[in-house]
Amino acid sequence: MTDASSSDIVGEKQTFKIRRLEITDKRNGYMELLSQLTVTGSVTDDEFDKRFKEITSYGDDHLICVIEEESSGKIAATGSVMIEKKFLRNCGKVGHVEDVVVDTEFRGKRLGKRVVEFLTDHCRAMGCYKVILDCGVEKKEFYEKCGLVNKGIQMSKYF
Amino acid sequence: MTDASSSDIVGEKQTFKIRRLEITDKRNGYMELLSQLTVTGSVTDDEFDKRFKEITSYGDDHLICVIEEESSGKIAATGSVMIEKKFLRNCGKVGHVEDVVVDTEFRGKRLGKRVVEFLTDHCRAMGCYKVILDCGVEKKEFYEKCGLVNKGIQMSKYF
Repeated sequence: MTDASSSDIVGEKQTFKIRRLEITDKRNGYMELLSQLTVTGSVTDDEFDKRFKEITSYGDDHLICVIEEESSGKIAATGSVMIEKKFLRNCGKVGHVEDVVVDTEFRGKRLGKRVVEFLTDHCRAMGCYKVILDCGVEKKEFYEKCGLVNKGIQMSKYF
Repeated sequence: MTDASSSDIVGEKQTFKIRRLEITDKRNGYMELLSQLTVTGSVTDDEFDKRFKEITSYGDDHLICVIEEESSGKIAATGSVMIEKKFLRNCGKVGHVEDVVVDTEFRGKRLGKRVVEFLTDHCRAMGCYKVILDCGVEKKEFYEKCGLVNKGIQMSKYF
């Protein structure tokens, strides 16, 4: 048996569940997963807990979801959505999806699509008229498979 | 004297002040201004007040600014910014600029730039590491003049 087929067998046993981020997820590899997306810096447990409470104080208006690999408890994927309340479109709401990332170890299992669908479903349930996100042009095809279309460009300014 | 020069003279007397949106701005043309950007629908006074209170309950994390023409009290321009709290970048924060619009009557006076600078200054003061926004490609040059650069694309899904 090769390493590859052995890895495949382990892969077949993996089961995933999608749920909201919990305060204990820092020790399940959540920050390491984010570091695959961009710089995370060194966040202490206290800083993590404080930020977790700030975000969860917004209730359903700021949701971070994670996909957990159940046998190991490891966080395999994540994404977040923040709901903006507007006056236009009959006091409409818009979901802003951010920070979607799948652990390199768990890619190719459609977990990214599950994350985007979970966040999109949340926005629909919250009464949003649309969901939007920014990405590099190389991710366009992936998000098209998730049902999104290219609508414009992102501009940014770093301080 | 032509109509055009008469209009210029009136223009010279205009003074503008930038400030946060107030609950009384619905009667100063705020919704009509937004309707130059997109569909607003018919928002009742009660609906406006309720949404105003929801947004202002976020304090400095969701700011809507307006530029008021002082002699008429008319709202000449607006823009908003919502501050997102993240775990990455040392529990960093990002400002999401939305719904920047200048009344057709008041264009060519750099009011759009003043709005973007006001919102950007707010984000900097709030400790954000960047400010971002989405726009049509035809607005790229305007935002470049405001100090932003094109960074990626926007994807969206309407429900």
